[in-house]
Amino acid sequence: MKHLSKGMLLLALICLSFGVPPKKIKVLFFGDSITQAGVQPNGYIVKLDSIIKQSHLPDSIELTGAGIGGNKVYDLYLRMEEDVLKKNPDVVVIYVGINDVWHKATSGTGTDPDKYEKFYRAIIKKLQEKNIKVLLCTPSVIGERNDNSNQQDGDLNQYSHIIRSMAKDLSLPVCDLHKAFADYLNANNPSNLEKGILTVDRVHLNDKGNLFVAMEMWKALQNMMK
Amino acid sequence: MKHLSKGMLLLALICLSFGVPPKKIKVLFFGDSITQAGVQPNGYIVKLDSIIKQSHLPDSIELTGAGIGGNKVYDLYLRMEEDVLKKNPDVVVIYVGINDVWHKATSGTGTDPDKYEKFYRAIIKKLQEKNIKVLLCTPSVIGERNDNSNQQDGDLNQYSHIIRSMAKDLSLPVCDLHKAFADYLNANNPSNLEKGILTVDRVHLNDKGNLFVAMEMWKALQNMMK
Amino acid sequence: MKHLSKGMLLLALICLSFGVPPKKIKVLFFGDSITQAGVQPNGYIVKLDSIIKQSHLPDSIELTGAGIGGNKVYDLYLRMEEDVLKKNPDVVVIYVGINDVWHKATSGTGTDPDKYEKFYRAIIKKLQEKNIKVLLCTPSVIGERNDNSNQQDGDLNQYSHIIRSMAKDLSLPVCDLHKAFADYLNANNPSNLEKGILTVDRVHLNDKGNLFVAMEMWKALQNMMK
Amino acid sequence: MKHLSKGMLLLALICLSFGVPPKKIKVLFFGDSITQAGVQPNGYIVKLDSIIKQSHLPDSIELTGAGIGGNKVYDLYLRMEEDVLKKNPDVVVIYVGINDVWHKATSGTGTDPDKYEKFYRAIIKKLQEKNIKVLLCTPSVIGERNDNSNQQDGDLNQYSHIIRSMAKDLSLPVCDLHKAFADYLNANNPSNLEKGILTVDRVHLNDKGNLFVAMEMWKALQNMMK
Repeated sequence: MKHLSKGMLLLALICLSFGVPPKKIKVLFFGDSITQAGVQPNGYIVKLDSIIKQSHLPDSIELTGAGIGGNKVYDLYLRMEEDVLKKNPDVVVIYVGINDVWHKATSGTGTDPDKYEKFYRAIIKKLQEKNIKVLLCTPSVIGERNDNSNQQDGDLNQYSHIIRSMAKDLSLPVCDLHKAFADYLNANNPSNLEKGILTVDRVHLNDKGNLFVAMEMWKALQNMMK
Repeated sequence: MKHLSKGMLLLALICLSFGVPPKKIKVLFFGDSITQAGVQPNGYIVKLDSIIKQSHLPDSIELTGAGIGGNKVYDLYLRMEEDVLKKNPDVVVIYVGINDVWHKATSGTGTDPDKYEKFYRAIIKKLQEKNIKVLLCTPSVIGERNDNSNQQDGDLNQYSHIIRSMAKDLSLPVCDLHKAFADYLNANNPSNLEKGILTVDRVHLNDKGNLFVAMEMWKALQNMMK
Repeated sequence: MKHLSKGMLLLALICLSFGVPPKKIKVLFFGDSITQAGVQPNGYIVKLDSIIKQSHLPDSIELTGAGIGGNKVYDLYLRMEEDVLKKNPDVVVIYVGINDVWHKATSGTGTDPDKYEKFYRAIIKKLQEKNIKVLLCTPSVIGERNDNSNQQDGDLNQYSHIIRSMAKDLSLPVCDLHKAFADYLNANNPSNLEKGILTVDRVHLNDKGNLFVAMEMWKALQNMMK
Repeated sequence: MKHLSKGMLLLALICLSFGVPPKKIKVLFFGDSITQAGVQPNGYIVKLDSIIKQSHLPDSIELTGAGIGGNKVYDLYLRMEEDVLKKNPDVVVIYVGINDVWHKATSGTGTDPDKYEKFYRAIIKKLQEKNIKVLLCTPSVIGERNDNSNQQDGDLNQYSHIIRSMAKDLSLPVCDLHKAFADYLNANNPSNLEKGILTVDRVHLNDKGNLFVAMEMWKALQNMMK
């Protein structure tokens, strides 16, 4: 992203100087119900859009949501042609994993960790073949207790490890939501509640949660553009 | 298949008359551990090959196995470029579903029925785009009791319905293994044993089971070529 | 029940002749949410009470519900001292098994078939030690499709087998709800719907379902009293 | 235990002085396959017996194993009359929970946390009614990775909390195996392996694991006797 983005921002500035409308950087968020809700009022994508508009950047970043409820990593892979590649994004943020872990317990249809990695890598490969920049995200939370006593904490930690080591292996940036949530909940959930801090129902974000994710995403996106 | 195959067989006969080596019809079996074992000695693909060689056909059908243990429908989709399309088969037999159902109970990582259909249709579509003929199979068995009292019978019946109605919807042929096994076990499992009739372990085929599947496949393939 | 009930009915008649209030036969229904709902208006226990009141019997049968939502066979065993034995019933109807099967898929906390039988037998033993008559029930349905294509049909068939062979082994009567539902749905569910015939939600009984169960229970109870 | 044990030890000493054989304190270990293996050569109960024999105590503690493979908390409850109460132990060590958690993922037949606590409390109550002293244990491990990334770590942490707060509520001693394993693995599993440190297969104890558990049990039992 380094070179591209610097170049793009430079181009944007040049264009602005000459009154030419700047090319927008298109960022697409690819995920599940959390991302589907992200484009609703107060959703994390809407909030991120506000943050960007309030910053000193030229209006050069356009955000799109491509989230579908219940999606796991292989569902993203199946629909990436239609829902991602056809939209020609410059950057794709992949935020998936909650259902891959959660559905093991709720319907017996989660995703094994090796398959999770395999499909995740296949998505990345297809994006990179189109010169699309990729930002990986570790999965946020299923339950907000801060002492690793939520039922899925073991898996969420494991699947987060997988994301981090793929990122390292492929030299890709990560928005480490799982760590960010853990740090926040350690500091801000003294009664060790299972929901109500950043989520409404242990998984889906409340207002504070949407803002929190928006800010984490913004930090990660800015790092990509440095 | 009707026109193509008649033409191909005719061509094969003409070629034979003139001493030209006939073009082989390449049939690829795409599946899980049952198909992986199908290419072993006594496996169903090896047995089918013998059956074909013993028939009065010119040696015009070449069989290939592409089975990997533990595979579900989405695993097939992920590897179809490498393992199927690159091999330029004329016919692909899709035999998958056991793990999609079974893994719900054994590791919480089965496949929801709607996703099963979605990926199955995506595989068919990609094959048809390359003018490859497709033979669908209903999943055989997980347990051989003949009174619908094997744990997964409900799902196997449902997933078989899905295959049959997709086939009807798309005017595609089906090798209805699930029905064939049920009929056979009704007649030949008087003690209602859970294994040992056509399988060694409730799932994987014994010698008789491999021969049984080979013959069912052969009937279905011959029907396609009529 | 044969001897006891004949005697009791006789006693009831004698008592009636002399103006002495007859001893009521106390029937307790021991189960899960279906039985918990059975004591609600239109519930199967309330309906059975109406049926009994409309019959030509002296008013000698008193019905009690002891159902708790989410209960499995081991939950019944744990609470039988408090909820059953202390109430001194003459007859206990055990109607449990839906959650033992269902919770495998919805929360990973169902009951293995061997444990199901073990706890069921332990309940029966404790009741018989107190000279309480026992009526076993096979579990009704989880989904109303009539072709064994509901996800849990395999297990429901298996657990029903277990009930029937325990009953045979112990010479106990069975109210075979699973078979009764299957027969009814074969005749009355031509569109093969998964709910809405005898249930509201695939499991819990609608008005027709409550009446249906009441009538099946009544047939079984009358057989016990012959 | 305080008063009883002091008295018993005193009695033992007096008896010894007068050549009367001392009454042995009978400690029974009640659990699953780990405890079943505990009475094998090198098992934790055998090792604990050696430790006790090597200590300066009079030979006054007799150890018995009552472990059965695959047992969950409700299995213990079902068999406690036969396997525990009839043996008149002075102390019962309850070590159960691994299967309650593990079987959720491997067969869909684990135990919900509220039921786990309910049955655990019912066992304690029955033991206390017979004046039997109780030592609770938190469940050891399912996987030895030390960063809470084993699949069942969330549940193991939660079920350990349940044990600890029951113990606090009932003023009972705890052998906190889960914490002891975690501390040991933090210090002694630098490569973050999933097995081979204290277990052979992520769950069942190797020699070092059996010794480790024996020593933890011994510390807890000595505390009870102070």
